[in-house]
Amino acid sequence: MNAYDNLMEHARQTQALAQIAGRLGWDQETTMPRGAAPQRAEEMAALVAVLHARRTDTQLADWLETVADQPLDDVARAQVRLIRRSYTRASKVPAKLASTLARVTSAAQGIWADARASDDFAAFRPTLENIIALKREEGQALAAGGDVYDAMLNDYEPGTTGADLEAMFGALRPELAALRAAVRDAQAPVALSGMFDETLQMKLARKLAKTFGYDMAHGRVDKAVHPFSSGSGLDVRITTRTNPKDPFNCFYSTIHEVGHAAYEQNINRAYLLTPLGQGVSMGVHESQSRIYENQIGRSRPFTSWLYTQMRDVFGDFGIEDAETFYGVVNRVNDGYIRTEADELQYNLHVLMRFDLERALMSGDLQVGDLEAAWNDRFLADFGFAVDKPSNGVLQDVHWAVGLIGYFPTYSLGNVYAGCLNEALRANVPDLDTQLANGNTTEAMAWLRENLQTHGGLFEPRDVIARASGQVPNEAPLLAYLKAKFSDIYKL
Amino acid sequence: MNAYDNLMEHARQTQALAQIAGRLGWDQETTMPRGAAPQRAEEMAALVAVLHARRTDTQLADWLETVADQPLDDVARAQVRLIRRSYTRASKVPAKLASTLARVTSAAQGIWADARASDDFAAFRPTLENIIALKREEGQALAAGGDVYDAMLNDYEPGTTGADLEAMFGALRPELAALRAAVRDAQAPVALSGMFDETLQMKLARKLAKTFGYDMAHGRVDKAVHPFSSGSGLDVRITTRTNPKDPFNCFYSTIHEVGHAAYEQNINRAYLLTPLGQGVSMGVHESQSRIYENQIGRSRPFTSWLYTQMRDVFGDFGIEDAETFYGVVNRVNDGYIRTEADELQYNLHVLMRFDLERALMSGDLQVGDLEAAWNDRFLADFGFAVDKPSNGVLQDVHWAVGLIGYFPTYSLGNVYAGCLNEALRANVPDLDTQLANGNTTEAMAWLRENLQTHGGLFEPRDVIARASGQVPNEAPLLAYLKAKFSDIYKL
Repeated sequence: MNAYDNLMEHARQTQALAQIAGRLGWDQETTMPRGAAPQRAEEMAALVAVLHARRTDTQLADWLETVADQPLDDVARAQVRLIRRSYTRASKVPAKLASTLARVTSAAQGIWADARASDDFAAFRPTLENIIALKREEGQALAAGGDVYDAMLNDYEPGTTGADLEAMFGALRPELAALRAAVRDAQAPVALSGMFDETLQMKLARKLAKTFGYDMAHGRVDKAVHPFSSGSGLDVRITTRTNPKDPFNCFYSTIHEVGHAAYEQNINRAYLLTPLGQGVSMGVHESQSRIYENQIGRSRPFTSWLYTQMRDVFGDFGIEDAETFYGVVNRVNDGYIRTEADELQYNLHVLMRFDLERALMSGDLQVGDLEAAWNDRFLADFGFAVDKPSNGVLQDVHWAVGLIGYFPTYSLGNVYAGCLNEALRANVPDLDTQLANGNTTEAMAWLRENLQTHGGLFEPRDVIARASGQVPNEAPLLAYLKAKFSDIYKL
Repeated sequence: MNAYDNLMEHARQTQALAQIAGRLGWDQETTMPRGAAPQRAEEMAALVAVLHARRTDTQLADWLETVADQPLDDVARAQVRLIRRSYTRASKVPAKLASTLARVTSAAQGIWADARASDDFAAFRPTLENIIALKREEGQALAAGGDVYDAMLNDYEPGTTGADLEAMFGALRPELAALRAAVRDAQAPVALSGMFDETLQMKLARKLAKTFGYDMAHGRVDKAVHPFSSGSGLDVRITTRTNPKDPFNCFYSTIHEVGHAAYEQNINRAYLLTPLGQGVSMGVHESQSRIYENQIGRSRPFTSWLYTQMRDVFGDFGIEDAETFYGVVNRVNDGYIRTEADELQYNLHVLMRFDLERALMSGDLQVGDLEAAWNDRFLADFGFAVDKPSNGVLQDVHWAVGLIGYFPTYSLGNVYAGCLNEALRANVPDLDTQLANGNTTEAMAWLRENLQTHGGLFEPRDVIARASGQVPNEAPLLAYLKAKFSDIYKL
């Protein structure tokens, strides 16, 4: 076999093993017996060790060197680019640091959960200090003299820098804060009340998943504590959750996860189990989940269809008409928690985490000052004070598990979704009529053909630019949010 | 680290990865989306390749050599013995033969299933000829001059030879055939009729699983096409099935699989994820599933309790009293299919497969003559003729997947169960009273402490001998069957 074939066979097996790790993660959250946790930890560690050994296999360096001189087509060149990136990344981090980080962040989850439960940031502080120090060390190894935060970001959003995000988010923040303040002063739509049978919620959630093109022959919907999507290719599973008082949580979590899952299902099957065969970045992934959930799922025409579906399933639930329902779905509520935030406020949550984690990495902010910095920023952006750490600095697991550079991809995904939404509406002029009938077929096909099918073929910013016809920027998202909330809140 | 620690760390990771393979198998039969099969095949192949590489890792040879000169305690010596056996076995088979066998038997499953569906042995014959030739080659590599069939058997029942089985089964066969003939001439108990709600069947099946000591915190019960138990240690899952007309299939499949699963759950936790941390052989495994299912589960006192449970769940189902119910449960029916056979006839099915596969391996029987040999033997032992290949030579998947030497462990398990049952009854004199109250606690504790806890510490025949106080032999099983069926059929 030649060097390229060797690389691809190696990569294929690595991808297959990585898919197994994903399946174990799904199992852990859905079906695993609770007493199996200690054994599962060892199983997972053994598999991670195998994956690490494969990713740092020095045979890769030889094949990569050989293949560098060879003529390759676009697809092969993209495969090699991703294999090279993975190998370079894996071999830059000393094995001892990688295993220390794995051990520390694994233990940190429990410490963080306990600290959150007892609302005691001090109990988590030493652990977080250790993690930040280790992540900085890792970042320095990866950056090799360059910017440490950019190096971390590169794991989740290759081609985007902290400076790019600072510019983008800097433009978003004052506008979002102003819009939020105006909405807070206006008359709010009514809120949903009553109880909604959880079995019926799941039934409608499965219908929504199919409505958004989720392929049940290559996936399944289960309940879990946290909604997530898991897997690539022919086996992409999602979870959702139910709360008798809040059916929207179930429905929009489902649509959101279907956005992630459909992306994975719709990648060109020729890329199955190769480096190209997965969503290209966290930001592009989030653009899919968000455009499904918000620009489509929370649109006036789609909610008018959802209103009739909910009436069919739950009977009269106290909302008099589809227009009122549209306001109910998009109601802006005060809240501390990012994952519960509406479309308008969500990015304010993310922007503060980006600034804080970047300052932690640069050393401008110490972990000892983090809680105060969080609370100050929250008060400035949201207009009310954090009441307890579980509603503030301890609310997210990300830092505890060593995810630095991950948060901003949430907002970047929203920015991308704004760009894609403009192009989608230009290319499918009849979209509103279709959505009012619960028909997403043309929208899904446009996203599939212009973006999802490519998998990792193009760099994240490039695939968004190709699909949307513009360099990714925050203006479309802002314009969309202003128009939508000015309308609903009659600003 | 010293050689022993190196061996154990290596073995621990291998065990952890093997557990993952088991989990994927469970997933495939219970939760996997149907369209995921081609991807799963690649995932499984990648994991099997990792396992094979670990099992033939030449580092093992170095450590095994070093450790051979060192003083070790009993447990460590047993661990090393199993590691050595695994390494020796894996390195005896040429890599090319191993991968050919894997490929051929993987494809053979589909060919066998199609041939069975169209009742066409000729369509399967060339595939089976290929498999038999490859297995003979493998057997010769493993036997290194010794008996080929014994070498195959060693994979499933170390320490037992074809000659041992021939003697044991030779003593069983005429006695079973005579007992069967007598039963056929006698008045049969009534048969069950009516329909039994499948959800209620599953509810009672879960209760039965708990009644037999299955630990739900380290397992779960799901439905699948074929009942099985999967996993070791802290995560041992079982499946069962339901048929509205045949609740006994659900209940006794559940109890049978609980026997397998409880064995795995009850192994000394100090052996978790080590070579000792699994059931020691197929025969000993089957002894547990069979003693749970038959000697306990189909006993007169236990069925009297089950009768009241079924009345509670299903109401009056047309059986007038517990004594009649005991007959119903143990009714001997004519049938072609091994997996549906009762306690009395089951071993006749296994014995014929043992003789046929041994003749295939020795070359005394050609695949071309297999169907005729099967049909002749069936007629001789059962008194009526096979009507079609799906009820005959094509009924079991075992040979198609390359399992040669596996069938006899089913009957060996029954023989072991007979020995264990004698000892159990001697050691728990009050057993019948307990079982009549649905109380298996003392019986389960006796099996756990005398057999299950040891895992792989002793060789199969030794652990049965230690627990039962006698060299494994067929006399107790025969005496038990004769007494039971003479009583029920008033012979």
